[in-house]
Amino acid sequence: MTAVTKYLLEESQMPRSWYNIQADLPKALPPVLHPGTLQPIGPADLAPLFPMELILQEVSTEREIEIPEPVRDIYRLWRPAPLYRAHRLEKALGTPAKIFYKYEGVSPAGSHKPNTAVPQAFYNAVAGTKRLTTETGAGQWGTSLAFAGNLFGLEVLVFQVRVSFDQKPYRRAVMETYGARCLPSPSTETVYGRAVLEARPDHPGSLGIAISEAVELAAQRDDTKYALGSVLNHVLMHQTIIGLESIQQMEMADTYPDVVVGCTGGGSNFAGIAFPFIGQGLRGGKMPRIVAVEPAACPSLTRGKYAYDFGDTGHMTPLTKMHTLGSSFTPPGFHAGGLRYHGMAPLVSHLKELDLIEAVAYTQVECFAAGVLFARTEGIVPAPEANHAVKGAIEEALRCKREGRAETILFNLCGHGHFDMTAYQKYFAGELTDETYDEQELAMALAGLPSVPAA
Amino acid sequence: MTAVTKYLLEESQMPRSWYNIQADLPKALPPVLHPGTLQPIGPADLAPLFPMELILQEVSTEREIEIPEPVRDIYRLWRPAPLYRAHRLEKALGTPAKIFYKYEGVSPAGSHKPNTAVPQAFYNAVAGTKRLTTETGAGQWGTSLAFAGNLFGLEVLVFQVRVSFDQKPYRRAVMETYGARCLPSPSTETVYGRAVLEARPDHPGSLGIAISEAVELAAQRDDTKYALGSVLNHVLMHQTIIGLESIQQMEMADTYPDVVVGCTGGGSNFAGIAFPFIGQGLRGGKMPRIVAVEPAACPSLTRGKYAYDFGDTGHMTPLTKMHTLGSSFTPPGFHAGGLRYHGMAPLVSHLKELDLIEAVAYTQVECFAAGVLFARTEGIVPAPEANHAVKGAIEEALRCKREGRAETILFNLCGHGHFDMTAYQKYFAGELTDETYDEQELAMALAGLPSVPAA
Repeated sequence: MTAVTKYLLEESQMPRSWYNIQADLPKALPPVLHPGTLQPIGPADLAPLFPMELILQEVSTEREIEIPEPVRDIYRLWRPAPLYRAHRLEKALGTPAKIFYKYEGVSPAGSHKPNTAVPQAFYNAVAGTKRLTTETGAGQWGTSLAFAGNLFGLEVLVFQVRVSFDQKPYRRAVMETYGARCLPSPSTETVYGRAVLEARPDHPGSLGIAISEAVELAAQRDDTKYALGSVLNHVLMHQTIIGLESIQQMEMADTYPDVVVGCTGGGSNFAGIAFPFIGQGLRGGKMPRIVAVEPAACPSLTRGKYAYDFGDTGHMTPLTKMHTLGSSFTPPGFHAGGLRYHGMAPLVSHLKELDLIEAVAYTQVECFAAGVLFARTEGIVPAPEANHAVKGAIEEALRCKREGRAETILFNLCGHGHFDMTAYQKYFAGELTDETYDEQELAMALAGLPSVPAA
Repeated sequence: MTAVTKYLLEESQMPRSWYNIQADLPKALPPVLHPGTLQPIGPADLAPLFPMELILQEVSTEREIEIPEPVRDIYRLWRPAPLYRAHRLEKALGTPAKIFYKYEGVSPAGSHKPNTAVPQAFYNAVAGTKRLTTETGAGQWGTSLAFAGNLFGLEVLVFQVRVSFDQKPYRRAVMETYGARCLPSPSTETVYGRAVLEARPDHPGSLGIAISEAVELAAQRDDTKYALGSVLNHVLMHQTIIGLESIQQMEMADTYPDVVVGCTGGGSNFAGIAFPFIGQGLRGGKMPRIVAVEPAACPSLTRGKYAYDFGDTGHMTPLTKMHTLGSSFTPPGFHAGGLRYHGMAPLVSHLKELDLIEAVAYTQVECFAAGVLFARTEGIVPAPEANHAVKGAIEEALRCKREGRAETILFNLCGHGHFDMTAYQKYFAGELTDETYDEQELAMALAGLPSVPAA
């Protein structure tokens, strides 16, 4: 019996363009609103935070946007990324389904995040930026921006959500190894951070707060820009290289997915694998079922409201229409830190409203159980975030078993868990619990959503 | 300017045989001696510890030994492994040398160790073994055997050197994720471990002690065998897939190494990259300079004695002729735990005596400085062990600069540092020191070497 089937592309087959799903949307995205005027904003409004190339990508409706050669050059360090058939997992589940997974843990940062960190650093360097600020949850994004910024000669300052800063001290060491500076957020280095700490000195932090701090510093200096690791259209677009490669690899495997599964926090790795397949469907090809898996403790797609909201807690960012738990919502400190965000990417939210994707939520402990089964069958230890996608794929495979259907399931294994072994340690010690949010806090956060005049 | 050049083989180019350097040695290895009789041993003497296939590989003089298909099948999960040109490191050093590195951190365990863990688990499973015992230092080997044993349905029990068990708790979680059981050594589960603890309750452990414990348990039960991660001939041979792939990749790069560099603890990753090149030289091809880099705090090749010694501290293993610091020597607790072994592989030692390889020792802090430079130029964070190879390659490149020579340097980057970030953290905090051994302890350990009658 073959235990491992790997589908590997040649370097010459690495995509030369990213895929922009805005070209194929049956209905355009709702406009982005200015935080002060609540009126639609133009590219110039974003110029203090981002270089113009990225702003143009944010609003572009071109289907293909060329990947610059210096970006492709760095991508070659780990791309094209492998796609595997999960033979041993299939056998352990006794499913007639074929399970495939794309593996993004081969990057130097151990996750999919460098796919967008590299182009963001590149466009900033070309535009003359000297310093990038950003936020990070689990540390995957901060690590990736530290890696990419360093390669293009940029200074990088990372605000890390305090609960992750404390839970994952090793992550900070990686960022520092790449030459970045890392601060726990809320910090005393920003006006907003100091205000949060004054109200609650032991605040565990949140991505929303860390974004406010990073944005505040970026807005102060011309040579400093802000970089976001998820949520924004251009970020999701950079990740589509995952799905574009996967389409070629599914051809090599002589099949096509019936179901595509990804985990969602801000939405970027999910979009990366899903959008190219949705695009094929929108252009008349086969449309697979697309399943977004989110943590039950931070369920923006399944429990949030589709409404205009701020991207940050300090209300410095523009407003976008998205599935949100409310910008004042602080998710509990579960271990998939990369999924602890109050909102969902506007593009992912929009596709959900258009019924092009489904969403499901699983709890922490059942996701770790799925991750351990995956490690013991396939040999790779997934990141806690990726465990949600593993769980989602396993549930689809078990449904196929019940229904006697030999479907093809594809999921994105967005990162390895080598930095996250304390969480596994707790799981084995029986100390891992299903963190839940406070229902009353959620209700209050949703009640506090900004009221926006109808378009 | 191209920043990344990667040389990647097709799966069909993955070697079908390992290379056995014993076929090409100008002088045979000295015999292995029985610990009781001090007389040369035969294959049957090793049967309580290893399956016969591995014992036959240990003494074989066949040049090529076929890699079984189930082993190649698992290898495909991460092999063939990439080889890179280190353009940015060259530029940072201002050297005319070309620097290439083979990267073994792409394996699921993050190091080269699965190259031998997989065949060892396979041959044991075929022979009916139910349980494997082993020792581990940093945890790379224990992780790899846990990974491989699990894939072939074997129970795995790992004795981890206590100082590493304490320094790297995450490693234990990986072993447990793969289903293995991990104990700090010296432990209370063996006669020998209890004796060591009685003499010194806070003993930091050593590979030599952990080997004694693992061997003691394996010898007790017919269904239990012992697996070693380095030192033995068959282990080094399994690693030659590294160098065999590298030879093909150097051809793709249209060059051939003038110098091959690897770090040495027990000698397995060094042998893996070096032996195939030495073999080409011994068979009439170009013979590169071969440089073994060891930690100054555990310098078996540069400060040890070439003599018969035990492989373990409890004197349960056969005696081999090797460079040794004495089996009673306890190396200080520096962070490259994988290099903390009192002896050197007999084959590596033999080649040193034949003047086919050179050896050099560097201290911990200068090796971390080299690793940080590598991470910031090439984007990959090396394991502390691998930092020694990086340091060795950098020193060769700087020599080339001084001498104005455009040599080709190849080194083995045997693992990533994602599990070892506490060590980097200490380095940045200025808390990392150059651990040194006690000269008097070394002198005593050397004086205590067993006296063996001349052959």
